[in-house]
Amino acid sequence: MLSKEDNELITRVGPGTPMGRLMREYWIPALQTEDLDGPDSEPKRVRLLCEDLVAFRDSHGKVGLVAENCPHRGASLFFGRNEEAGLRCVYHGWKFDTTGACVDMPNEPPESNFKHKVKVTTYPCQERGGIVWAYMGPNDVDAQLPDLEWARVPDSHIYLSKCLQECNWVQALEGGLDSSHISFLHSKLDRSTIAAPRGSVLAEQFGGADQHPRFAVRETDYGFVYGARRNATNDQYYWRITQWLLPFYHIIPAEDGAVVTGNAWVPIDDEHCWVYRASWHPDRPLTEAEIRDYRYGGVMHEEVDPVTFRPRANMRNDYLVDRDVQRTESFSGIKGIQAQDMAMIETMGPICNRAREHLGTSDTAIISMRRRLLRLARELENGDVPHAAIHGEAYRVRSAALLLDRGIPFDEGARERLISPA
Amino acid sequence: MLSKEDNELITRVGPGTPMGRLMREYWIPALQTEDLDGPDSEPKRVRLLCEDLVAFRDSHGKVGLVAENCPHRGASLFFGRNEEAGLRCVYHGWKFDTTGACVDMPNEPPESNFKHKVKVTTYPCQERGGIVWAYMGPNDVDAQLPDLEWARVPDSHIYLSKCLQECNWVQALEGGLDSSHISFLHSKLDRSTIAAPRGSVLAEQFGGADQHPRFAVRETDYGFVYGARRNATNDQYYWRITQWLLPFYHIIPAEDGAVVTGNAWVPIDDEHCWVYRASWHPDRPLTEAEIRDYRYGGVMHEEVDPVTFRPRANMRNDYLVDRDVQRTESFSGIKGIQAQDMAMIETMGPICNRAREHLGTSDTAIISMRRRLLRLARELENGDVPHAAIHGEAYRVRSAALLLDRGIPFDEGARERLISPA
Amino acid sequence: MLSKEDNELITRVGPGTPMGRLMREYWIPALQTEDLDGPDSEPKRVRLLCEDLVAFRDSHGKVGLVAENCPHRGASLFFGRNEEAGLRCVYHGWKFDTTGACVDMPNEPPESNFKHKVKVTTYPCQERGGIVWAYMGPNDVDAQLPDLEWARVPDSHIYLSKCLQECNWVQALEGGLDSSHISFLHSKLDRSTIAAPRGSVLAEQFGGADQHPRFAVRETDYGFVYGARRNATNDQYYWRITQWLLPFYHIIPAEDGAVVTGNAWVPIDDEHCWVYRASWHPDRPLTEAEIRDYRYGGVMHEEVDPVTFRPRANMRNDYLVDRDVQRTESFSGIKGIQAQDMAMIETMGPICNRAREHLGTSDTAIISMRRRLLRLARELENGDVPHAAIHGEAYRVRSAALLLDRGIPFDEGARERLISPA
Repeated sequence: MLSKEDNELITRVGPGTPMGRLMREYWIPALQTEDLDGPDSEPKRVRLLCEDLVAFRDSHGKVGLVAENCPHRGASLFFGRNEEAGLRCVYHGWKFDTTGACVDMPNEPPESNFKHKVKVTTYPCQERGGIVWAYMGPNDVDAQLPDLEWARVPDSHIYLSKCLQECNWVQALEGGLDSSHISFLHSKLDRSTIAAPRGSVLAEQFGGADQHPRFAVRETDYGFVYGARRNATNDQYYWRITQWLLPFYHIIPAEDGAVVTGNAWVPIDDEHCWVYRASWHPDRPLTEAEIRDYRYGGVMHEEVDPVTFRPRANMRNDYLVDRDVQRTESFSGIKGIQAQDMAMIETMGPICNRAREHLGTSDTAIISMRRRLLRLARELENGDVPHAAIHGEAYRVRSAALLLDRGIPFDEGARERLISPA
Repeated sequence: MLSKEDNELITRVGPGTPMGRLMREYWIPALQTEDLDGPDSEPKRVRLLCEDLVAFRDSHGKVGLVAENCPHRGASLFFGRNEEAGLRCVYHGWKFDTTGACVDMPNEPPESNFKHKVKVTTYPCQERGGIVWAYMGPNDVDAQLPDLEWARVPDSHIYLSKCLQECNWVQALEGGLDSSHISFLHSKLDRSTIAAPRGSVLAEQFGGADQHPRFAVRETDYGFVYGARRNATNDQYYWRITQWLLPFYHIIPAEDGAVVTGNAWVPIDDEHCWVYRASWHPDRPLTEAEIRDYRYGGVMHEEVDPVTFRPRANMRNDYLVDRDVQRTESFSGIKGIQAQDMAMIETMGPICNRAREHLGTSDTAIISMRRRLLRLARELENGDVPHAAIHGEAYRVRSAALLLDRGIPFDEGARERLISPA
Repeated sequence: MLSKEDNELITRVGPGTPMGRLMREYWIPALQTEDLDGPDSEPKRVRLLCEDLVAFRDSHGKVGLVAENCPHRGASLFFGRNEEAGLRCVYHGWKFDTTGACVDMPNEPPESNFKHKVKVTTYPCQERGGIVWAYMGPNDVDAQLPDLEWARVPDSHIYLSKCLQECNWVQALEGGLDSSHISFLHSKLDRSTIAAPRGSVLAEQFGGADQHPRFAVRETDYGFVYGARRNATNDQYYWRITQWLLPFYHIIPAEDGAVVTGNAWVPIDDEHCWVYRASWHPDRPLTEAEIRDYRYGGVMHEEVDPVTFRPRANMRNDYLVDRDVQRTESFSGIKGIQAQDMAMIETMGPICNRAREHLGTSDTAIISMRRRLLRLARELENGDVPHAAIHGEAYRVRSAALLLDRGIPFDEGARERLISPA
């Protein structure tokens, strides 16, 4: 449960809000590299942290990310001409480079000095792992890209998708950190298994048997690592270990040698977020069959509208729930893990009212995440920049799903498995 | 005319508002019995008095009406599994029975006592006359179902329909209490007749001749009874007698032996209401021809979209007004009594601004109704529960349309005819 | 740049606002004459200065413009019966004439005096030049129709069109007063020409060569006259001279003997305006070819939806921008001068935030216009009625585009050309 005030504080990320300021300390995904073709690309609208922006790739291939409204009189730079290392407003020809400098102002007299006094708001960008990352905060000298594993593997090793979620980013993130729901929402009717990537041997063997997992959270520099423990054999526990990485990343538990999947829930504004979903293998290229499954098969990555990125099953059609299937086959009657999650998360409302919640022991991770975010936002007000925002190497971690001898703490037993090499 | 403050007070029915509290003293229609099939029905969304609810019929056939958002973390119980005497949230498997008790909480440890601390908001329901009635107030011991005649006749005697009205419930109710408009809005161009059910002999003979009816209101326990007097013969008046029954019911005048029609305008929220319309015969089954007329013929009951219950003629298409017909045939150019009423009521705006009205003597009933509602709402603030809310028998009344000797007060002359036997 | 307060003041025109009061001192276009056919026309909805109105032509051909909501209980008079010199509400038959008097109240007793106490809000109308003009202010004795030339030429000499612009009227007006953009937004890729009506010899010869025009504004009784000077020959300047006429008119520069085009940006409400566009020849009928070009050819007048008057290219389809055309042919990639203008103006947002602007020397006219409007609004608060509102003859002016010897001020050199004879 959160008070109304704390709920406002944790959810709102517009300019000037405490959580908005915290979010702006991190490099965050702004769009996909493939959204901007060649040099002198078509400009593209980007809405991020409640700000309307336009992205373009200049003649040198460098990405610019500028405020959508021209600083002159406010016409949209989306219609701008992207040419010769800058974006030129088609209203009066003012031209801006990727640093925001006004490099041409042809409607003013040649002797005018006015163009040196005008800048467009711009945010530095870097590209890595198929993502254009932006830094919208006050100090881009110290801030570092997060060394997330999926952003560092070769292109051949990763499949990346994006979809729209029509709710606040915090509840979307909470859906990722919520561990106990997989035994229900994503389960067959007999709950004999839990949802897990194909070929998850341990999940099939031990996932469904113990329906009362125990949870343990360990705070870390990057956020926390979180273990869900199920009884396996007399001597061993089946552990599913996952991470929350500040501010909005999550890695799904993966067994040794399996493809790993992780999410980023990036706030578009307070009532919408992008889900970037990456499936990658740390050590080998994805197979054609795997890519086909992700792209067309509904495996881990959902079918979306190619323009709006809204999933086919969405709130407007009740996520295509099938009551017969619910009665006879699956627990939810909704097809696909992502659609199941979205049905739960989005129907909480655009911004979930956390004053009426009743949290139990299975919500430990969610409670920890909220406390951490609120604490970091408050510390930032006192000038304390969050550690991970300026230490990209803090993100070199990996999830795990494995058997450990009873009596060994999960973070000790799995220590090596949880490291993603530099 | 109402002040801005009184207009707010009388129209708004959300939780915590004075009129919302008054409304919650009464048992009110929540949905139709047929909306919930067999035991273990599909859950159905219900919005009522600005609250989002989910209705279901449990394994024993008992109706549950619960807050839509699960008390755990707020996922919608609309997607819930209705099974074994309870509704189970598909997110984490929490299960609630029709009393709101949490009867299973499978994602918490078996030894946990947490489920006994959690309840979902629930409202008691009763079924009668094709309606599921709900009581959303503080004292369901004393509150009684209203003994409306249409809710007590056998199923064979009644035809019931529902349609959406896109405005506040008060102005919809006012449309029902407004007596003088029938000589205009519902009239042929020559105004030789007034709108009345088929076979209304008196209406045909005396309805159109006297276009200046006189009105008299008598307050009663259940609301008021209201007579509109027209000159008929030298010795007699033609009386049309109707009732307003708290908080939002109305019975259309009916001649002896005729089918009676009545309405309930139930607030969905402050800007939408349901019109439940009942046509019933107190003493005999409806004929096939009558039912066909109601269902397909646009007689008394309008054609609605089967999903949204929005009438075919609505504000989006200017109620299909035909200016040629208006010029040559009917007073309004709009087809159907219901569409005519809606065109007037809905175009006042979502919530009519009553500060700019000019009410005349023909608005006596409307003025009385408003005063009564405002008075009852204020009395309730002082702890006075309205009489009819706890005396269902007060509703045993029936409308009338008849000739009475001049000189006899209508409520005396028609006394017997206005009683609906227990 | 405007402060937030001044931006509110200049943009908002609802009843009771300072700019709304200023606007109501002028006779303004309410609708087109052709919108109301014959006597006893169909009533037509008109939204103007944030007020919902209904227009009708009575049996004598006189136009009535009344508040949409009936003063009785608020039903829409749009559904009214227009008959025998008045508009009759179909709810209870109340009838109003064009002066707003209630001339019949048939649902009240014959002896009632109530109808003499009820009036509907009504605004005086006059017809001239294909337009129904309305005066919504306090003093219709002194206020005069503006003697705009296009409103005084014979019907055969003018083509008039209307389209919807989905933004505040001030930024739409600013688009008309903005002179320097024509060298960019409306230009071919090589910027060798500027946008000008067909057969504009001087524009073709001298428009594109000098891309740094100098601007001069002269305040006048009616608003201002504004000259843009380009180098032409050694001895002469090419002057484009245009007027802003209070409160929202503009005349596009025209060469001697050419068809002239002018605009009116009439506030529907604070976030929408009508663009009335007139193309007229002061001295001769338009040719069939000219009319065909305006009606079907996209010349000066855009293609609009016949019901909503929304242009085919609009914000919902990014004004049909073609990036290939932008790359290889035209500066903007958008087809049509009007669509180009709207893309710039509407993407500033429904009400442009002028606190973040950066205005240069090319924005002189815009700055002057804003100062004048703000000053007039403030003076009106002190009781000073604006001169032009009560002197229709002040509007007898005409734009020009011509060569003038260097050294001669434009308003002196073009004095005769700028006069529109009485």
